[in-house]
Amino acid sequence: MSLELYYWDGLQGRGEFVRLALEEAGADYVEVARGDEDDGLGTGAMMALLDSDDEAHPPFAPPFLKDGDLIVAQTANILFYLGPKLGLAPRDEGLRYVANGLQLTVADVVTEAHDTHHPIASGLYYEDQKAAAKQRSADFLDHRVPKFMTYFEKVIRQNPAGSRYMVGDALSYVDLSMFQLIDGLFYAFPRAMKKFGQHYPLLAALHDAVIERPNIAAYLDSDRRLAHNESCIFRHYPELDQDAR
Amino acid sequence: MSLELYYWDGLQGRGEFVRLALEEAGADYVEVARGDEDDGLGTGAMMALLDSDDEAHPPFAPPFLKDGDLIVAQTANILFYLGPKLGLAPRDEGLRYVANGLQLTVADVVTEAHDTHHPIASGLYYEDQKAAAKQRSADFLDHRVPKFMTYFEKVIRQNPAGSRYMVGDALSYVDLSMFQLIDGLFYAFPRAMKKFGQHYPLLAALHDAVIERPNIAAYLDSDRRLAHNESCIFRHYPELDQDAR
Repeated sequence: MSLELYYWDGLQGRGEFVRLALEEAGADYVEVARGDEDDGLGTGAMMALLDSDDEAHPPFAPPFLKDGDLIVAQTANILFYLGPKLGLAPRDEGLRYVANGLQLTVADVVTEAHDTHHPIASGLYYEDQKAAAKQRSADFLDHRVPKFMTYFEKVIRQNPAGSRYMVGDALSYVDLSMFQLIDGLFYAFPRAMKKFGQHYPLLAALHDAVIERPNIAAYLDSDRRLAHNESCIFRHYPELDQDAR
Repeated sequence: MSLELYYWDGLQGRGEFVRLALEEAGADYVEVARGDEDDGLGTGAMMALLDSDDEAHPPFAPPFLKDGDLIVAQTANILFYLGPKLGLAPRDEGLRYVANGLQLTVADVVTEAHDTHHPIASGLYYEDQKAAAKQRSADFLDHRVPKFMTYFEKVIRQNPAGSRYMVGDALSYVDLSMFQLIDGLFYAFPRAMKKFGQHYPLLAALHDAVIERPNIAAYLDSDRRLAHNESCIFRHYPELDQDAR
């Protein structure tokens, strides 16, 4: 049976971190919310599962993955579960926890990137929290991005298996997620990201290497890869961007 | 060799979620940052590891756990790693992913609880972001806490193994974390939390049952359990609290 990925239609969002792993591995998966109602798919099918009052282990929110009867929720958890099955996790068990720790740190940056445009309330419009968003974005770009990226560059530099990958001696889902994080930041903050490659050469090289992988290149070129947009985590609001340091 | 827990001294923080599991299990562990410099412990030893430029797998931030040579970072990851070793994870492998998904959702609430007093920048003082904090707290209490708690109450209600635990038919680290989350919210927002037991009876019963467990009761009564305070995630600023609905 195919894996079923549940995520909102119309945006990359957190679902994209899972999609990149599925696509790199050439996995057979169904994108439930993007499917046809006549096939029992679509956003309605996703909402029915979220709202179910007899599901044994209901998820809080998309993305979640259904593999047979098992529902796995939360992006990093889905990747921890899928990684070994897709050949995208370290073989060493200890390193799998290292990978998960890195993935959760990527997730922290993603949450902070979201909060640049929604610092006060995720339920309010951006337009209703613009002043706070400007302040939070400046802090994010001045302090948080450098702090996280300096750390990730150090991780790849100190990787005892070589500096091509975040963890271990082969591509893992963490590398794909790092690509997506950098890609999202380039979209949202093109000015601030201008010197990224200069400051973080190993991360920039990793980003570029991921793009060139045949399955990823084909995916990015397909209509399954939605464009970045302003319904998503990484939003390009020029007024929140600033010059690179 | 003992497990080594690394976390900032002087506050419960995210380390407390790990501590509760270690204490419930009666595990042998060293609280590194609270130890003596003469024993090679203390905050300096923690910082040396964080700043090391040759550590194979450096963590981004505390809490992290050292088990022999392996460093496991990020709260939920530490618990996922420790859970089975401490007898505090479901025996069923699929349910372990359910537990991790729940733990990550608890972590999301913890991050949002932190952001009630630091909505603009974690590096600025609360006093410099008070107006935004008031807005974010109101949204957190009006919308986010009810949304998360309604979900968690549903999880425990729909648990096919019975409604005493969040997942499976025995206590897991998720239950301990749920206790800590509720306890923290009671400290930070005593007025807003006044009707908690009325709205979420199963969660309230879980909270009370955890307190009564002998190892947890002994721990809460010991000087290892630091008091809640305003250096922590859950801070009691009366001006951010509001009447219960």
